Amino acid sequence: MEIIVQKFGGTSVGSIERIQNVANRVIEEANNGNKVVVVVSAMGKTTDELVNLAKQISKNPSKREMDMLLTTGEQVSIALLTMALKEKGYDAVSLTGWQAGIETEAVHGNARIMNIDTARIHEHLNEGKIVVVAGFQGITKDQEITTLGRGGSDTTAVALAAALNAKKCDIYTDVTGVFTTDPRYVKKARKLQSISYDEMLELANLGAGVLHPRAVEFAKNYQVQLEVRSSMERERGTVVEEEASMEQNLIVRGIAFEDQVTRVTVQGLPNGLHTLSTIFTTLADHGINVDIIIQSTTNEDTTSLSFSIRTEDLEETLNVLQSHKEILQYATVEHESGLAKVSIVGSGMISNPGVAAEMFKVLAEHGIEVKMVSTSEIKVSTVVQQSKMVAAVEALHEAFQLAEEAADAPVVS
Amino acid sequence: MEIIVQKFGGTSVGSIERIQNVANRVIEEANNGNKVVVVVSAMGKTTDELVNLAKQISKNPSKREMDMLLTTGEQVSIALLTMALKEKGYDAVSLTGWQAGIETEAVHGNARIMNIDTARIHEHLNEGKIVVVAGFQGITKDQEITTLGRGGSDTTAVALAAALNAKKCDIYTDVTGVFTTDPRYVKKARKLQSISYDEMLELANLGAGVLHPRAVEFAKNYQVQLEVRSSMERERGTVVEEEASMEQNLIVRGIAFEDQVTRVTVQGLPNGLHTLSTIFTTLADHGINVDIIIQSTTNEDTTSLSFSIRTEDLEETLNVLQSHKEILQYATVEHESGLAKVSIVGSGMISNPGVAAEMFKVLAEHGIEVKMVSTSEIKVSTVVQQSKMVAAVEALHEAFQLAEEAADAPVVS
Repeated sequence: MEIIVQKFGGTSVGSIERIQNVANRVIEEANNGNKVVVVVSAMGKTTDELVNLAKQISKNPSKREMDMLLTTGEQVSIALLTMALKEKGYDAVSLTGWQAGIETEAVHGNARIMNIDTARIHEHLNEGKIVVVAGFQGITKDQEITTLGRGGSDTTAVALAAALNAKKCDIYTDVTGVFTTDPRYVKKARKLQSISYDEMLELANLGAGVLHPRAVEFAKNYQVQLEVRSSMERERGTVVEEEASMEQNLIVRGIAFEDQVTRVTVQGLPNGLHTLSTIFTTLADHGINVDIIIQSTTNEDTTSLSFSIRTEDLEETLNVLQSHKEILQYATVEHESGLAKVSIVGSGMISNPGVAAEMFKVLAEHGIEVKMVSTSEIKVSTVVQQSKMVAAVEALHEAFQLAEEAADAPVVS
Repeated sequence: MEIIVQKFGGTSVGSIERIQNVANRVIEEANNGNKVVVVVSAMGKTTDELVNLAKQISKNPSKREMDMLLTTGEQVSIALLTMALKEKGYDAVSLTGWQAGIETEAVHGNARIMNIDTARIHEHLNEGKIVVVAGFQGITKDQEITTLGRGGSDTTAVALAAALNAKKCDIYTDVTGVFTTDPRYVKKARKLQSISYDEMLELANLGAGVLHPRAVEFAKNYQVQLEVRSSMERERGTVVEEEASMEQNLIVRGIAFEDQVTRVTVQGLPNGLHTLSTIFTTLADHGINVDIIIQSTTNEDTTSLSFSIRTEDLEETLNVLQSHKEILQYATVEHESGLAKVSIVGSGMISNPGVAAEMFKVLAEHGIEVKMVSTSEIKVSTVVQQSKMVAAVEALHEAFQLAEEAADAPVVS
């Protein structure tokens, strides 16, 4: 018998009815002759409600106590799902993060998994039980309850699949798989049959939101085969696996995008070895997440620096820059909001140097101005006017032929 | 520095505002120079809501999974109270039952505490922290989460006070103390300054509802001084302590009562050694709680047996008796609902044999028929018409002079 890990997110367990549905999906895998380990998140809006309670007490609640508070959400889910499985005649047992042996580093709110002691899970599986594990949580060596941060339940599932040497790890969610782009915006978006870890990582980081980047990284490192699929629909989802088993030559696999982007430009910075590190360390210390960074030396003595941030962080960013003006020694700051980021992702780019140029050409032909550019080996990101975001995505989706089934087959430029 | 244990029930932590109030009460004791350990229950109706979720899945949910589910309620409370304490500038740390070292027997839903490893609590107290412990929960040797059953948070508090050798254990609740009888029914009810463990036990068992009997027993066994007091009002409450320090000769300390009582009489049972054990084991196996039992042998061969139950259990009781008629070999069953139990409690009864007679005389003078009687060393219980319950309590309250402050002073009949 092989082990299968299934993960169901908050929406999938958002009501008693949905928990019953999840139980049926779990039972299907058990009936297929597999040992099943199920990882669940907190029900629907539970986490938000708990955060709201905490915020009524403190603007900046203790991270340790937030972990104590939030981990109750998954504990409720595992108990209810296990009851549902037992009610349907299947033996099952729920385990909190610490009971499941998930040891993390001693950090609250965003801990990494250090080790998983699978003894107890194996024991229950060998007793013929379905094991239901609370996602998102672990325990330190000092018996402190921790959480894994955003997308933590994905990480729990993948880490368990790796530690248990599971045949596969199915991530059940409210979409049917990974799409070439967001189908809510682009009608022609198409579900991919497969995608590589690296492509998924770029898409995950770019806000595709289906799978958490940390979970994908974990899966890549331990070569865990993932499938992203719907908890409501029966159809197959998208398999995330090592590149080797896939079409090498596909240039663009998908298009990610996000709105609410603001560009900030700091002019007249002194040229110097520490300028960049000083400015971005200062921003990071204030919890401001900087995305694209572009440096251009305008004359011999000074540097101009542009970077993109989430628009919601603009006020704080300007405050931080203002209050550190003496240290940073810049001349002026200007900013532009109402922008969006549009990115194309595909492993095939590595061997196709002309892809970025093709992207710029398509955007230019559609009258879309590129404000910033950032590239990686398998990704090109552009910042454009937010009002043109969807038009840009549609044009690129068309130009790179993503709507066609053939996009999963080799395409050489 | 001495250790004080404070326990706050669900109503006391029922909202963010009330949690803030609890934090203030805790801080007062800390400012008095005490090391403070706080035990809290789940917020308001949380437990009921969780039970309701489970009932939607299963009529008879797994007890293990119910423990997994319900223990989240207290975990939320400890996190929020600890945040509130920290927000007010006091260092505090929350501990779940297992983190606090509360080891129980391997029973779900109603486990007894076997041992408390206080090392971690002492460590935190020595760091100058207020320690906030989740009531109602513990852990078995096999790392299974358990609950202590109804009133479990009281038990947690008393057990911790005993294990920590605390100076006292204050039980904060929504009443200002223990009354001579229920002030919602009897205007002249008076708050007692003190009461013995045994008297409190009888009152607790009789449905006075202020303190759970198991907690009182625990306090008696370990000689933990309790004070029952209000979390909202500032006044002193009622001290529960060993008899020795109190007025020995007080005859009646309080009057307890409960409605919704039904008398069931089984006639024509065969005389025999096993008749009683068979009938009550059968009822207990079906979860029916039998209170007063009266046996009377009516002729040489057969026995008549009357017992009182909660009216809500009547249908199930009749079903059980009917389906076991062949084994039990009785002739007929009759029952009477619409009854109530009225009990007088007081340590002084031990040395005053005429108290029961006095009680019957008072009831008779008020035209109240006594349907059943049960006595212990410090208690006389009577079953009367429910419609006469309050009149009976008022008459007894008057006759035993409970409204007078002198009731706390010696009274000899």
